[in-house]
Amino acid sequence: MTAQFEEIGGGITAPRGFVVGAVHCGIKKSNASKPDLALIHSRAPAVAAATFTTNRVKAAPVRVSQMYLKNEDIRAVIVNSGNANACTGVNGIADAKRMCEAAAAALGLEKTQVLVCSTGRIGVPLPMEKIDAGIAKLPDAVKADGSRAAAEAIMTSDTFAKEVAVEAKIGGRKIRIGGIAKGAGMIDPNMATMLAFLTTDAPVPKPALQKMLASAVEQSFNRITVDGDMSTNDTVILLANGEAGGEAIETGETAERFQAALDHVTRQLSRMIVEDGESATKFVEVHVRGARTCRDARRAAETIANSTLVKCAWCGNDPNWGRIMDAVGYCGARVREEMIDIYYDGVLAVQHGMASATPVEKLLDVVRQRRFTVSVDLNLGSDDYSVFTTDLTPGYVKFNMGE
Amino acid sequence: MTAQFEEIGGGITAPRGFVVGAVHCGIKKSNASKPDLALIHSRAPAVAAATFTTNRVKAAPVRVSQMYLKNEDIRAVIVNSGNANACTGVNGIADAKRMCEAAAAALGLEKTQVLVCSTGRIGVPLPMEKIDAGIAKLPDAVKADGSRAAAEAIMTSDTFAKEVAVEAKIGGRKIRIGGIAKGAGMIDPNMATMLAFLTTDAPVPKPALQKMLASAVEQSFNRITVDGDMSTNDTVILLANGEAGGEAIETGETAERFQAALDHVTRQLSRMIVEDGESATKFVEVHVRGARTCRDARRAAETIANSTLVKCAWCGNDPNWGRIMDAVGYCGARVREEMIDIYYDGVLAVQHGMASATPVEKLLDVVRQRRFTVSVDLNLGSDDYSVFTTDLTPGYVKFNMGE
Repeated sequence: MTAQFEEIGGGITAPRGFVVGAVHCGIKKSNASKPDLALIHSRAPAVAAATFTTNRVKAAPVRVSQMYLKNEDIRAVIVNSGNANACTGVNGIADAKRMCEAAAAALGLEKTQVLVCSTGRIGVPLPMEKIDAGIAKLPDAVKADGSRAAAEAIMTSDTFAKEVAVEAKIGGRKIRIGGIAKGAGMIDPNMATMLAFLTTDAPVPKPALQKMLASAVEQSFNRITVDGDMSTNDTVILLANGEAGGEAIETGETAERFQAALDHVTRQLSRMIVEDGESATKFVEVHVRGARTCRDARRAAETIANSTLVKCAWCGNDPNWGRIMDAVGYCGARVREEMIDIYYDGVLAVQHGMASATPVEKLLDVVRQRRFTVSVDLNLGSDDYSVFTTDLTPGYVKFNMGE
Repeated sequence: MTAQFEEIGGGITAPRGFVVGAVHCGIKKSNASKPDLALIHSRAPAVAAATFTTNRVKAAPVRVSQMYLKNEDIRAVIVNSGNANACTGVNGIADAKRMCEAAAAALGLEKTQVLVCSTGRIGVPLPMEKIDAGIAKLPDAVKADGSRAAAEAIMTSDTFAKEVAVEAKIGGRKIRIGGIAKGAGMIDPNMATMLAFLTTDAPVPKPALQKMLASAVEQSFNRITVDGDMSTNDTVILLANGEAGGEAIETGETAERFQAALDHVTRQLSRMIVEDGESATKFVEVHVRGARTCRDARRAAETIANSTLVKCAWCGNDPNWGRIMDAVGYCGARVREEMIDIYYDGVLAVQHGMASATPVEKLLDVVRQRRFTVSVDLNLGSDDYSVFTTDLTPGYVKFNMGE
């Protein structure tokens, strides 16, 4: 199937019927002009799908959104940055619910029609007076071209706003999917979280929407790692309001086309997150193939991508395949040392578990680039898995030393 | 049981009947005067016990030592630093065997009476001519007080030589146990490995020796982590020659006393390794208790100890318990957020999964120290586990950037 979609502008407000806005309400003290509260609203009835962190320590907004997600008609998402509302006990749950309630009141909805997300400092109560005042201003702030404002409002240590949108012709009419996201990795001192918000005007029933979102997330946000630390707040939410009209997209070819377009949006956003990994100087794809099982391929790829020593070597432009062999050896996957081949952008570095005849200068040429691919062929089966990651830099450590 | 042993000098040559020596043979090019080849030799018949890396990518000397360990009478260990002889294929195996053969010839032994270890660069063939010449000189270099020379010869990026010895009165006679070790973590560019060599003049039959060594290693070397990367060469070898005389130490009270003395030696060496973690500024004990199973306690302790973000916070004197909660949440152990308590040197930081009332200044006082303990009580059961680790510093990353 060739690509049946094209990228367009407009981000999360590219799909019809969505309005989005952001205000500064004062959660982020250090930067008074920076927006820290955003609202995403579908003017028409909509359904929602979502995936959440699998961390057993879950922030209050994750718990509340998981609860409200059962509702059929979800119309809005309220998000704050600067405070994660995590490890805040029953008061945190009450505050998260109150955010939904305030947003619902401002929009004339029920509170269970609003989902909620937070990102920022862990263990500190939300400043609810400021948030209440901010939410009251949001209905006047939302606009049909407000995507960029919201993308900026959810940033913590991100260095650029992350937006993407596509238009696809499916079943005779044009549908759109848009998205915004914020940085991966537990980033700033006490800061956390990857958040992504997606909208579409395609008519997709809730069960199909959830299935397709789960599949898209598995191929994108679940395949990126900056530091291996999974946050308490990670959330991806997709709202579908059907404003594009036409028959429901549920199965068959229309569903496949929608999935392809959605996959593109989530992949682009997840790549931007890795590109913006804190203090990173390299963008590396780790591809493991020839594994006995997909689980083995995944284990090997994730272990390489999270190895402190492998990541330090990349930072130093060092084509150190010994550390990759070492990580493959302890990852828990079935491997046979003498079967392993390793390539840097297709250049053979390791053959049969030993140094290849490739001159080291050729490997250096690859790892000196800002982007490259490390491929590990286990030569034991036919399963493969890819992960996108960064190097580990002295700047990352300094950035996360806190105080 | 009160301690029935005392620390003495002499390291690995404190036990009777052992001679040890080291020479520079030229594997380490950068430092011509630094010894890089060591020999440990029991003049009397001895038995050996050993534990090896569980990495599936194993260095050639690990494979050869595992094979020769089956032999009843092991009399010597030959060790080189500067080259790991890992990922070197069948030629690497042949080279490792040849090191045993050369040492055996020099000492008048069979090759299977000699175990072999290597540490250093991965994927480069050993310079066998230099090693052969070096081994030929070793019988003249060995001395009854050569422990320090060997401890220095096995160093790679270690900043100090690691030696310890104890004397214990067991069953009416005094027995001694000595040991030397080299640094944990995959340290230098391409360098690897934790190595420890232990000797005793106690008469311990091989099966009991293996059992007691495995238990000691489980309580010590298996509970330290610097960067979570498990090397291809990790090896611990214990030789027992019975020169102290008396009845065999195998079971009952004498075995318990021997175990206690052995545990002390391995614990001291493992602590020294963490103390010498590359570019580390903190020495931290992570203690998880109240777990449902020992496996859960271990998972939580190891995940905290290997979390990049937790380690960065320690480096910055930041009592950032949110990152610890986060790591506990994703470690895979059964936890209930609202049951978790966290203490810094006994000072309550987190109660019922939320910030305690302790002023942050009190927590800062703890993490500003060079050594402290982080205790996490899951409050779900009675199992516990401890890990010793370091912080992660900008210096570590710079050190491991290679080139």
